[in-house]
Amino acid sequence: MSDFEEQKITPAVLESFGETPDPRLHALVESLTRHLHAFVRETQPTQEEWAQGIEFLTAVGQKCDNVRQEFILLSDVLGVSMLVDAVNRDIGSAETDTTVLGPFFVENSPIFAQGADISSDIKGDPLYADVLVRSVDGYPLKGAKVEVWQSDAEGFYDVQRPGIAEGFSLRGTFSSDEDGRVRFWSILPTAYPIPHDGPVGALLKATGRHPWRPAHLHFKLSAAGYQTIVTHLFVKGDPYLKSDAVFGVKDALVCNFPRHAAGNAPDGRKMETPWHTLGYEFALAPDRNM
Amino acid sequence: MSDFEEQKITPAVLESFGETPDPRLHALVESLTRHLHAFVRETQPTQEEWAQGIEFLTAVGQKCDNVRQEFILLSDVLGVSMLVDAVNRDIGSAETDTTVLGPFFVENSPIFAQGADISSDIKGDPLYADVLVRSVDGYPLKGAKVEVWQSDAEGFYDVQRPGIAEGFSLRGTFSSDEDGRVRFWSILPTAYPIPHDGPVGALLKATGRHPWRPAHLHFKLSAAGYQTIVTHLFVKGDPYLKSDAVFGVKDALVCNFPRHAAGNAPDGRKMETPWHTLGYEFALAPDRNM
Ligand SMILES: [Cu+2]
Ligand SMILES: [Fe+3]
Ligand SMILES: [Fe+3]
Repeated sequence: MSDFEEQKITPAVLESFGETPDPRLHALVESLTRHLHAFVRETQPTQEEWAQGIEFLTAVGQKCDNVRQEFILLSDVLGVSMLVDAVNRDIGSAETDTTVLGPFFVENSPIFAQGADISSDIKGDPLYADVLVRSVDGYPLKGAKVEVWQSDAEGFYDVQRPGIAEGFSLRGTFSSDEDGRVRFWSILPTAYPIPHDGPVGALLKATGRHPWRPAHLHFKLSAAGYQTIVTHLFVKGDPYLKSDAVFGVKDALVCNFPRHAAGNAPDGRKMETPWHTLGYEFALAPDRNM
Repeated sequence: MSDFEEQKITPAVLESFGETPDPRLHALVESLTRHLHAFVRETQPTQEEWAQGIEFLTAVGQKCDNVRQEFILLSDVLGVSMLVDAVNRDIGSAETDTTVLGPFFVENSPIFAQGADISSDIKGDPLYADVLVRSVDGYPLKGAKVEVWQSDAEGFYDVQRPGIAEGFSLRGTFSSDEDGRVRFWSILPTAYPIPHDGPVGALLKATGRHPWRPAHLHFKLSAAGYQTIVTHLFVKGDPYLKSDAVFGVKDALVCNFPRHAAGNAPDGRKMETPWHTLGYEFALAPDRNM
């Protein structure tokens, strides 16, 4: 076992992990070793290339702080975050498609009443959303927690504008009514680039990729006895739907946001400018442990 | 292309890299994507497990500073550093086996004359080394640069003892003489653990592995017109030869360090205590570009 020519290294490393007490960790490190070694055998990196890889990973780690998670970004642009999402879905489930959480979710966003406006008077095309939360078998879910967050008309989230936005804006927590419905006012979201001033941005640039995500609203839906859903609703017609930098788009999540002329909105609000509506039915699956 | 169920994600990511201008970078990101995705498909990590993986990689990056490179350490304990070394060797080459550089190499170590003592009076069993640098076809190489560095009797390198060791100790640069030989005094090296107070140490612990490396002297050999060699000479009989934490041991690099009774050394030095000798022939291959 002490002669580590090319073919002997992988078995030696696998053997070294042979005494891992936790069987799940054992399976993970074993599989990681095999695929990582296969990558090295296939690409035969020079010492200089390997050193560059080490430098890249180090820079990714060092770019992370309280508000920036560059390794999640790397996982996102390599499609790994969406693959982890996919392998965790029950096959043939009728629940609403899920997608990446993204870096801009905030726990405990402000609680709003039915029909409230979450835009904090931020400029943009007005949007009236009326969504339904139901079980996969069609029953409306009352009291479901509906968390929504989105970018402004310039593509920024409130957390990206410290000092400009005071506190929260364009995010909020609602509770579904008797009929499982949640209604709120906001503005139409805009396409935006993922943070690309770090090593992940450099990788995108070097590989000829753009950092843009198609316009979307984020939703997190939780109801007692049901599996929580983290997803987006995307704006149909967005030019980046086919090339989302993080591979988050699924057909069933692309929605019409029909435009209406100035006039009366469904809740009686008098619109002086054109405005949009959004309707969607979210379907939640029963908790696996129930 | 916008419906990213499990089987569609990998082709979509590969396609996104399709316009990478540099063909070598293209090959690297493509292979990385395939093996990384295969790892995820095989292990089916939960969202929590993936988040733990992201946290681990972030901690590895954040442990790195001017004197600590935790990602190299990770590459070492996963056997990847030795695999990169292996894939870069010419098959059937007669040159001396190579092994990992390790984290304790320092550029421009002090230059010593033939026969000098590099131990700076640090306590340990005296060692007299007499090594030969030759070409693979047997010609002694005059004026070859021979850099040597090693741990002290307690397993520490000078750079790990700031404030204790003044400047350099147990490292130096020599030039081979007319006959291709380099002779120097030092002390017998000791087994030592790799730095294990960080996330890589935590990984070793969680997987039931120890952090120890068998006792060794590091050598870097450079001569004009020849390929540079980075290697170790290991002390035969060391208990960690079969379980080196970084998989660096090769049979041809394990040496006798015979022990001698007090008396006269080959260079006339009078030894009051028992002492050891080391002899080795390093064989260098011609430069690939010559
Ligand atoms: Cu693989
Ligand atoms: Fe977003
Ligand atoms: Fe060492």
